Amino acid sequence: MDLIIDGWFHERGALWPGQAMSLKVEEVVYHGRSKYQDILFFKSTNHGMVLVLDGVIQVTEHDEHSYQEMIAQIPLMAHGNPKKVLVIGGGDGGVLREIARHDSVEEIVICEIDEDVINYSKKYLPSLAVGYSDPRVTVKVMDGSIFMSENPGTFDVIITDSSDPIGPASVLFEAPFYRGMYDALAPGGVICTQGECMWLHKDLIKPLVDAVKKFCTSVEYAFTTIPTYPSGQIGFILGTKDKETCKTPVKVDRKMEETLKYYNKEVHEAAFVLPSFARRAIFE
Amino acid sequence: MDLIIDGWFHERGALWPGQAMSLKVEEVVYHGRSKYQDILFFKSTNHGMVLVLDGVIQVTEHDEHSYQEMIAQIPLMAHGNPKKVLVIGGGDGGVLREIARHDSVEEIVICEIDEDVINYSKKYLPSLAVGYSDPRVTVKVMDGSIFMSENPGTFDVIITDSSDPIGPASVLFEAPFYRGMYDALAPGGVICTQGECMWLHKDLIKPLVDAVKKFCTSVEYAFTTIPTYPSGQIGFILGTKDKETCKTPVKVDRKMEETLKYYNKEVHEAAFVLPSFARRAIFE
Repeated sequence: MDLIIDGWFHERGALWPGQAMSLKVEEVVYHGRSKYQDILFFKSTNHGMVLVLDGVIQVTEHDEHSYQEMIAQIPLMAHGNPKKVLVIGGGDGGVLREIARHDSVEEIVICEIDEDVINYSKKYLPSLAVGYSDPRVTVKVMDGSIFMSENPGTFDVIITDSSDPIGPASVLFEAPFYRGMYDALAPGGVICTQGECMWLHKDLIKPLVDAVKKFCTSVEYAFTTIPTYPSGQIGFILGTKDKETCKTPVKVDRKMEETLKYYNKEVHEAAFVLPSFARRAIFE
Repeated sequence: MDLIIDGWFHERGALWPGQAMSLKVEEVVYHGRSKYQDILFFKSTNHGMVLVLDGVIQVTEHDEHSYQEMIAQIPLMAHGNPKKVLVIGGGDGGVLREIARHDSVEEIVICEIDEDVINYSKKYLPSLAVGYSDPRVTVKVMDGSIFMSENPGTFDVIITDSSDPIGPASVLFEAPFYRGMYDALAPGGVICTQGECMWLHKDLIKPLVDAVKKFCTSVEYAFTTIPTYPSGQIGFILGTKDKETCKTPVKVDRKMEETLKYYNKEVHEAAFVLPSFARRAIFE
């Protein structure tokens, strides 16, 4: 437990050299090692329960809604009428919770490779794991790539809620994985993936976007603010099959927006407006 | 120098309880106390030179352009034809650098109360302090409130680039200071102030916005992403005299935009689009 010093958790990582976010710890509630990774849950003094995988903050109750709402509602609203939705990763259940808000959705499949993340999230992050209680959800504890290869042309929306490209999630940041998602999309379908940070990872995002452009109809980048992720933002790579853009939502649901903390139609559109340095680095 | 432990600078403060940003230190180049505050300059391993006042990061060369461009270009472009511009605070010179890009500007006055910040910024942050070399700049080492009371109805744009509302800058977050700015504005004028963070300081922003509404024609809130400020974002309070809104720039200068790293017309407009939680907390 050398990540916690003098009562503070320090998030130091090779992907954000020379900077670190620290959170004050009230109590460690679980620490162990699954088949795939180190898992830590702690109660923080000011940010609620925190989930850490391999030393990296995945969720705090304080700001998780920004990430979960944006990674899910952007592709779902951009699609407009999603019926079949696939989630890769996202074992905490927060993305499921967001998808379950949509009446149009008939089937939600989640492929999470690490069963421990699911089980401990149900115990320690019930406000996210509530997503599992929706009767439309089917859980597959398996590699999402294999599941997708067995289900071509099937899904209206595929959301990849992964950790960073170090460790078990590294293959999720490579073109073959995106090709797998594309092939599993139905016509008019939308992919949305965790796309790292424009302030830190332009050199990772740019080649990935370029590679995905070769087969997706459109490839776009959006971002959201989230204080406890490195540099305070995280981005999303949006790819489509036979659909021109995700920048404008096809569906606008003001009634649902009232129940959300972060997402609304205007935020959806603004999320694609990049600072000049990021637009140049990723798209020029 | 108890802020630097094991080679890392830790930014812990009462305004962001339970969280801290840390930067790795390569070398401390200056540490001293002015008449007003503790001043620290250090060279970081990955974020260039860093200016810290009273333990709080004010500038890193890595991301300063986001803050300087947005706090200056939003009001200047919203005004459209600024001739006289006043800066309160901003002793590092970065805001001056941004104002000096505008050919329409005839006179730039800066009121910085702490001469040491000016002098050490000229030495250690020349890429910001270059702003002082513009011949249109007049430096007043004095309290901005007094200067404004002596110059009513004068300025097209007033920018307050202050530190946080603890210590010497606390009066800058109170309604009488905003009233002073309003009175120093010419008709059609625009105020833009450092407005803290929507994720952390809704309870500070809301009453201030409500108080300023009583005399300004419009009061609006915009924000920018900036990794080394607490929670990764900072906001701006925009107030006007006889002008309906700052949300859309009156002036668009694509040629200037090419020389900027962060600001562009689309970013200007998107900066006013707030996540639902912030919109509700500040404006409803």
